[in-house]
Amino acid sequence: MRMYDLIMKKRNGEALSEEEINYMIKEYTADHIPDYQMSAMMMAIYFQGMSARETVALTMAMAHSGEMMDLSAISGVKVDKHSTGGVGDKTSIALTPMVAACGVKIAKMSGRGLGHTGGTIDKLESFEGFTTGITAEHFVKQVNEIGVSIMGQTMDIAPADKKLYALRDVTATVDNMSLIASSIMSKKLASGADAIVLDVKTGSGAFMKQEADAFALAKEMVTLGNMAGRKTIAVVSDMDQPLGYAVGNALEVEEAIATLRGEGPEDFTQLCMTLGTYMLIAAGAAQTEEEAKQKLSAVIQDGSALKKLAEFVQAQGGDPKAVYDTSLLPKASVAEAIVSAQEGYVKKIDCDEIGICSLLLGGGRETKESVIDLSVGLILHKKVGDFVKSGESLATIYANDRVKLEAASARFMKAYHFDDSQPEKSPFIKGVIRE
Amino acid sequence: MRMYDLIMKKRNGEALSEEEINYMIKEYTADHIPDYQMSAMMMAIYFQGMSARETVALTMAMAHSGEMMDLSAISGVKVDKHSTGGVGDKTSIALTPMVAACGVKIAKMSGRGLGHTGGTIDKLESFEGFTTGITAEHFVKQVNEIGVSIMGQTMDIAPADKKLYALRDVTATVDNMSLIASSIMSKKLASGADAIVLDVKTGSGAFMKQEADAFALAKEMVTLGNMAGRKTIAVVSDMDQPLGYAVGNALEVEEAIATLRGEGPEDFTQLCMTLGTYMLIAAGAAQTEEEAKQKLSAVIQDGSALKKLAEFVQAQGGDPKAVYDTSLLPKASVAEAIVSAQEGYVKKIDCDEIGICSLLLGGGRETKESVIDLSVGLILHKKVGDFVKSGESLATIYANDRVKLEAASARFMKAYHFDDSQPEKSPFIKGVIRE
Repeated sequence: MRMYDLIMKKRNGEALSEEEINYMIKEYTADHIPDYQMSAMMMAIYFQGMSARETVALTMAMAHSGEMMDLSAISGVKVDKHSTGGVGDKTSIALTPMVAACGVKIAKMSGRGLGHTGGTIDKLESFEGFTTGITAEHFVKQVNEIGVSIMGQTMDIAPADKKLYALRDVTATVDNMSLIASSIMSKKLASGADAIVLDVKTGSGAFMKQEADAFALAKEMVTLGNMAGRKTIAVVSDMDQPLGYAVGNALEVEEAIATLRGEGPEDFTQLCMTLGTYMLIAAGAAQTEEEAKQKLSAVIQDGSALKKLAEFVQAQGGDPKAVYDTSLLPKASVAEAIVSAQEGYVKKIDCDEIGICSLLLGGGRETKESVIDLSVGLILHKKVGDFVKSGESLATIYANDRVKLEAASARFMKAYHFDDSQPEKSPFIKGVIRE
Repeated sequence: MRMYDLIMKKRNGEALSEEEINYMIKEYTADHIPDYQMSAMMMAIYFQGMSARETVALTMAMAHSGEMMDLSAISGVKVDKHSTGGVGDKTSIALTPMVAACGVKIAKMSGRGLGHTGGTIDKLESFEGFTTGITAEHFVKQVNEIGVSIMGQTMDIAPADKKLYALRDVTATVDNMSLIASSIMSKKLASGADAIVLDVKTGSGAFMKQEADAFALAKEMVTLGNMAGRKTIAVVSDMDQPLGYAVGNALEVEEAIATLRGEGPEDFTQLCMTLGTYMLIAAGAAQTEEEAKQKLSAVIQDGSALKKLAEFVQAQGGDPKAVYDTSLLPKASVAEAIVSAQEGYVKKIDCDEIGICSLLLGGGRETKESVIDLSVGLILHKKVGDFVKSGESLATIYANDRVKLEAASARFMKAYHFDDSQPEKSPFIKGVIRE
């Protein structure tokens, strides 16, 4: 078999066989196929697409390109959750304790990545001493004992995807539905969970700007997961403005804790309840949506979800006291209100601009080597549809550096757009894809 | 400027600016843009195409990527000729002395390349002592003195094209009209001639299988040449069967010499006369086709074309006696006739199979390191439309090795196809593109 012939075949609009896809991924991972041939293939796929059969074959080939996590030592159904990412996305921090408190096992691997804030691991490091650098034995034991653990991705999970994604990222071949879906799902399949709930965002702050695209991606991933024998459900939700009010690592942890106390923002609470519902259903811990919602509400009301977060933090070396006293979380030295010069209804909040504010404050990673300042960020006071009077505060910016604060403030002004009339409210949860 | 943005732009169907194309070619030649980005770009161009303006910009950028040959020390109009290649293509060997004998200057650079026979340089080395390894001074002096010289391509001509072609060759991005045209024309423009005549082949043995594609390529190259200020004309001719009767290096030289004596095959003579006509017209050495044809016929009839070949061979160190006594050319030790088992009209001669015969005999280069046997090859006795009786000879194979002879003979059998009725004859010259 020659890669040249496979490129030609795909370029001419023919489907690749499972055998051909396996060959391509195996040899590429082993550095036997050069990047310049693979990037030509990716561009050919961008134009010619892949059939459902090809996408499944690619996903499975990438999932099996490295180690496959074996979670069989954990009793019961293990559920994983994946978000396509957005601004203010602290979902895992509130959601995993909620679901674990309902008796569902969560054994999650997580990475750091680049972005306007850190990833889930960075955010959790707001708890002093918290670490995801635990052994596989610790990980399994912890899930068996308290129902939840998050481990740093030290294993060689789907190396083919890692190599291929890095290549696609620099050759303008990222935005193809089949390639995006197979990239996400190959990692999820290799991570070993029995059921997967996908948090697919749509809107200006999401990877999928158009709702139709988000649904198409959700559908593709659900099909892939189910074909691979994992119960998979996707929830499509709004990311046309930041999620909740907090953007920034420790600030988001604080908001997640508030949510576990039942005092979270409306949109974020709704998202956690919805995703939690389908995690319970996927795990067989609830038969109906109503039953699931009741269980989730109960663990918030009786404090057991918050307690689960404390147990989880403690089990991984963190200080659980901060769960009950958020003044112990990292705090920025300066807080400054951003005052509105305009009056009117908030029509639009540009997610990218808010993300850049957080990055400018030092809250995110521009390169792999960047050091994150966990304490900085923003708390929005107004969201889309709210009325703002001139002189009223739109947000508070938390910073440790005057220059960075000024830069972020200047940038913040670009994010808010106003209108005279109240904009129509669109539903926050756009839909659920179950098969 | 970032290559990533240019790939994205082209991928999305937008045209690249001249500035962007210059950047891309300059940085790629300097190894600042990696192959994997360029191959993605080439695949995007394959799908999205290039406008005439983009193609001109690409051609000029590649032409200027290395040294530009300066032929200003040669007086008069310098004409170059380029063939898209085929089986039995000995055109330059007969054509250049014909045109030079008519007073037109030919200063040609030539390469060796891979193929079923050698290139023009290899073929000319059938004259003992002949070399193209001459200095630029020798080259210029020789053209001024005798009107013709062929120099080995030692200069760094269009290195961007060389690098890009090698990449396209392994990434299934060769067959795009704009890319093919710019590749050929960049080298021609850098080679410094004032006028260019293009010998574009079409048919089973040509790069362009379809006549419409050959015309499209011819049109594209003529436009490029004229836009670059070089008088450019293309002749589209048939390559559905080998050109002439001889295939093999010294055998082809012998056929070219016969043609200069006025005893050449009909198709090959017609091709030399037609290309010669437009070379004379392009150089301003004839005003009409009729005038050009008369001049070319005259230099054949009075022997001055043959004499010009002898002068040319001698000027580059070769033994000119072989021009008048072809028994001095390299001869194979074994000659064997291939006898037809069938009776009927020759319907089709598969060029590729004939080419493979020559390669099997050792007459061509499979890798850059291959050593060519100049003496071996085939002389066809029957061409399309000829009637063949059972037991009649179809061809003679010339070899120096029994095993290779057997292999070539076995392969030869696949090349000829017969029919009961005489096939309709299609014109050999398909057309001429002048602007």
